[in-house]
Amino acid sequence: MDNTSCLMVIFGGTGDLTKRKLLPAIYNLYVEGLLPDNFATVAVGRKAYTHEEYRMIARESVMNFSRNGMNEDKWSALSERIYYEKVEFHDPAAYVSLKNFLNELDKRYQTKGNRVYYLAVAPEYFEVIAEQLHDHKMAENNGAWQRVVIEKPFGRDLRSAEYLNQKLSQVFDESHIYRIDHYLGKEMLQNIMVIRFANGLFEPIWNNRYIDNVQISIDETVGVENRGNYYEKAGALRDMVQSHMLQLLSLVAMEPPIDLSTDAIRDEKVKVLRSLRPITRETVSSSVVRGQYGRGTIDGKPVVAYREEERVSPDSDTETFVALKTYVDNFRWAGVPFYLRTGKRLADRSAKIVIQFKQLPGILYFKEYGPLEPNLLVIWIQPREGVYLQFNAKKPGQKYNIVPVQMDFCQNCSLYNNSPEAYERLLYDVMRGDSTLFTRWDEVEYSWRFVDSIVNAWKDGKDTIEVYEAGTWGPTGANELLKKDGFEWWNITA
Amino acid sequence: MDNTSCLMVIFGGTGDLTKRKLLPAIYNLYVEGLLPDNFATVAVGRKAYTHEEYRMIARESVMNFSRNGMNEDKWSALSERIYYEKVEFHDPAAYVSLKNFLNELDKRYQTKGNRVYYLAVAPEYFEVIAEQLHDHKMAENNGAWQRVVIEKPFGRDLRSAEYLNQKLSQVFDESHIYRIDHYLGKEMLQNIMVIRFANGLFEPIWNNRYIDNVQISIDETVGVENRGNYYEKAGALRDMVQSHMLQLLSLVAMEPPIDLSTDAIRDEKVKVLRSLRPITRETVSSSVVRGQYGRGTIDGKPVVAYREEERVSPDSDTETFVALKTYVDNFRWAGVPFYLRTGKRLADRSAKIVIQFKQLPGILYFKEYGPLEPNLLVIWIQPREGVYLQFNAKKPGQKYNIVPVQMDFCQNCSLYNNSPEAYERLLYDVMRGDSTLFTRWDEVEYSWRFVDSIVNAWKDGKDTIEVYEAGTWGPTGANELLKKDGFEWWNITA
Repeated sequence: MDNTSCLMVIFGGTGDLTKRKLLPAIYNLYVEGLLPDNFATVAVGRKAYTHEEYRMIARESVMNFSRNGMNEDKWSALSERIYYEKVEFHDPAAYVSLKNFLNELDKRYQTKGNRVYYLAVAPEYFEVIAEQLHDHKMAENNGAWQRVVIEKPFGRDLRSAEYLNQKLSQVFDESHIYRIDHYLGKEMLQNIMVIRFANGLFEPIWNNRYIDNVQISIDETVGVENRGNYYEKAGALRDMVQSHMLQLLSLVAMEPPIDLSTDAIRDEKVKVLRSLRPITRETVSSSVVRGQYGRGTIDGKPVVAYREEERVSPDSDTETFVALKTYVDNFRWAGVPFYLRTGKRLADRSAKIVIQFKQLPGILYFKEYGPLEPNLLVIWIQPREGVYLQFNAKKPGQKYNIVPVQMDFCQNCSLYNNSPEAYERLLYDVMRGDSTLFTRWDEVEYSWRFVDSIVNAWKDGKDTIEVYEAGTWGPTGANELLKKDGFEWWNITA
Repeated sequence: MDNTSCLMVIFGGTGDLTKRKLLPAIYNLYVEGLLPDNFATVAVGRKAYTHEEYRMIARESVMNFSRNGMNEDKWSALSERIYYEKVEFHDPAAYVSLKNFLNELDKRYQTKGNRVYYLAVAPEYFEVIAEQLHDHKMAENNGAWQRVVIEKPFGRDLRSAEYLNQKLSQVFDESHIYRIDHYLGKEMLQNIMVIRFANGLFEPIWNNRYIDNVQISIDETVGVENRGNYYEKAGALRDMVQSHMLQLLSLVAMEPPIDLSTDAIRDEKVKVLRSLRPITRETVSSSVVRGQYGRGTIDGKPVVAYREEERVSPDSDTETFVALKTYVDNFRWAGVPFYLRTGKRLADRSAKIVIQFKQLPGILYFKEYGPLEPNLLVIWIQPREGVYLQFNAKKPGQKYNIVPVQMDFCQNCSLYNNSPEAYERLLYDVMRGDSTLFTRWDEVEYSWRFVDSIVNAWKDGKDTIEVYEAGTWGPTGANELLKKDGFEWWNITA
C-alpha cells in the first residue's frame, strides 16, 4: 500500500529557499514521476497572496531555477495542486484556519492526514511553529504520519541545540524529525559510501596503513552576500564545519555499517564524531586557523572586505575562513591528520575530498628518481561531481622520467547527465520516510561538542584572526598548518 | 668518458625488419640527439648495392616508417654515415673485406673498435655469422666492446635454444648477447614496474588477497601475411607465448627487485618463470585451447582461412590462436589464475593486461544491489598506451543504481604525444650497454621449459584444434576456459 500520499506544508513559502530550491525540486520530482499521486503543496507565509498569485510566484521560481527548464503542460498539472495560506507564525487563529484548510485538502487529494511540515524559516521560529502545531493537534500521528523538516542552523552551540531539540521532541518523535543538511543530498556524498564499500580496490587501503592524510575543503568565491545579519552571529565554523564538513568527515572515516539501514549508518557516523579529538586551549593555536577576507579581486573585479559588507560590523571579528587539523582517534585512523578548510572569497569554488596515500619506502624508483609525488584520490563534490586519481607513471621517452598522471571520472560533465539537486533527493526521502540522508540528534550533538571545543578555546584565547586578500587561498596560517606536518593543500582545479 | 661510440653493423640490411624498424629507429635517435657523436651504420646483405643505392633505400624506409616524418637536413647529415657491404653469410672472404671496411670506418669515425652486430636475419644464419665473426677475430673484445643483437625466435624449443646459445656463447659473453623481445621496449612494458613499485595505491593490493585473476591478451586482426613459411613451423604458442606473453606475465607477477639493476630485475623475472606450474598431459585439455582461423570477415572484408594462405599446408594443424590458464606457484600468487590469450584474425587488435580484483564480501551494496561488477585495472600496451580503471559508483538519480564507471589515462592519445618506437629504446640501450630490456639466457630457458611442457602434452595428445571464424574472439573453448572458473574475458575496447 502506498503510504507516501501527503500534503507538503512549507512554512516560509515566500522565502529564498522555497523559491530557489523547494519549488523547483517539487517540480522536478513531479516531472520524473516521483511525487505520490495523492499530493498537494501548501505554501505558508506572512504575506497576503491568493492561490493564483502564489502560483505565479512559484511559476517564476521554477522557470528560473529548475535544472530541467519548464514544461508548460507538466507545470499546469502540478500548479493546480499548489496552494497558499497566510499565517502569522505566532497567531493561534491562523493555525485554526490552516488546519481546516489542510483537512479540506486531505479529502480532496486523499492524503489521509499525512503531512510534511517543512520549516523553511529563520531558526527563531522553529519553536513557536512546533508549539502551535502541537497546540492545534496538527502533529498527532493518529493513524497518519506527520514529519517535520528543519533547515540548519540547528542551534548555535550545544546548549541552544539541546534546547531546540527538546522543544521539537515534545511535538515530534525523533523518527519524524528530518534535520536537513543539504550536502547529504548531493550525489557525491551518497557516492562516498558506495566508493568505499562497493569496490575491492579501495576498501582494503582505506586506513592509516595506506593513507597519509585527508583533506576536506569547501571553498567559495562568494562573499557573505545579503546574509551579513545571520553570518555575523555564525561565522564559518558554525556555518560550515558543524554541519557539512563534519558530515563529509564522518562519511569518509566511518567503519562499514552492519547493513544499509538508516540507524546502522548513523550509528557509525556518530562513532566517528565521538572519536574526534577535541581542540583544547593548548592545541587551538597550533590546530586551528581563523581568517577574514579583506579586499581583493574575484573574477577580475575588485570586491570589498568583509567588514565593509552590508549588515556587518566595521570591527567584526567573525571568521569567514577556518582551517583546522583534527584526528579520528580510533584504530583505523590513529595518526592520520584530517585537515578541514572552508572559506568565502577564495580563489576557486569547489568542494572536494582529497585522500593522500602514503609513499612507498624510499627504495627502487623512489631512490633513483625521487622524490615522487604521492598518490591522490579526489572525490569532487561540487560543482564538478566525480572521482580523480593521480598516480605515477613513466613519461614516454628514452629516459626514466617518472611523472604524476591523472585519471578522471566526471559524473556531471556530459551534456546528457543532469544530476538531481540535493533537495529533490531529500524531499523524496522525507515522503518515503527514509531519514538516512538526514541528521540524527546525536550527530548534531557531537558535532556541536567538537565545534564548541574550538569556540571555547577561542574565547579563552590569545588567538588572532588573520585577514586574507579576497581571491586567494586564504591566510598563510592555513598553509603553515600543513607545512609543519610536511604536507600541503592539494588545490587541484579540474 | 663516452664509451657509446660504435659502428652498428646490421646483418640483413635489406630485410623487412631493417627497413620497417631499424633504419627509422636510428634516424629518430639521431633527430633526438641520442646517437653517439662517433657513429656509423653498416648494412650488410647478400644483394649488390653501392653505398649511394642503399642510402636511397634507407631514405625510402625512413620516409615510410619514421614516426617523426623526415627532415631533409637531418637525413642528409645522417645518411653520410650509412654504408652498405655485400656479404654472403657463409663466405669467409666476405668477412675479410667487411672487417677491413669496418676498421677503416673505425678510424674515420673514431669508433674505437666498438661494434653492435645486429643479426636481423633468419635464425638459421645466427650460427654461421657468429662463427665467422669469431674466426675473423671480429668479436675479440680487446679494449673495445662487441655486442650481438639477436631477434626472436631464439630456437624452437629448449633443445634448439640451448644449442644456439652454446654456439653464441663460444663467441660472445652472455653480458654481450642482447636477445631482443621488442615488447620489452614498448613504453607500457617499461611502465608496468613503475605502476607497481612507484605507487602507494597499487603496491599493497598486488597479490592474491585482492586480485582474482589476471588476463593477458595480445589480439591481432592480421592473418599470417607473407610469413606462412615461418609460421607453419612456429604457431602462436612459440611465436607469441614463449616470448612476449611470458615476458608480460613476468613483469606483472615479479617480486620487487632489490634495486633497479639489470640483474636484480632479471633475477625476479626468472623466479616467476620458474614458479609457473607446468602443463601436463593430465591438465593440458582443461588448461589450454588451440585454435586456427577459418574464413571470416575483417573490417567488413572477407578473408581466407589459415589453410588457404600462401605457403601454408592445406591440412595444417598449426595453431593461430592459443589460450591457456596457468598459475604462479608462489606465496604472492597462489590460487590466482593467469589467463593468456593470443591469436590472429581476431575481432580487435590490442595488447593489454587486465587485473581483475576480488569482490568484497556479499554484504552491504553487494547484498542489496548485487551482483556488482568487479574492479578492473587495465594496462593498455598497444595500440593504445595507458591505464584504465573500472570501479563501482552510484548512478545519479533518486534510486541507488550502482553501475561500473571508468577512468582512463591514455598516454599516446594526445596529438603532441608521440611515444618512441620500441626499437629506438632498444638500440639506444644496446649502445649504452644496458641490457635490462633484453632477455637473459635463463629467461629464455625457463620460457621454453614451460612452452615445451605444452607442446609435449599436445604431442601425446588427444587434444584437437578448434577452427574459429576470422573476425571473432577465437574458439568457444577459450570462453569455456574462464567460464568454468566463474570468469570471463574482458574484451574491453577503448
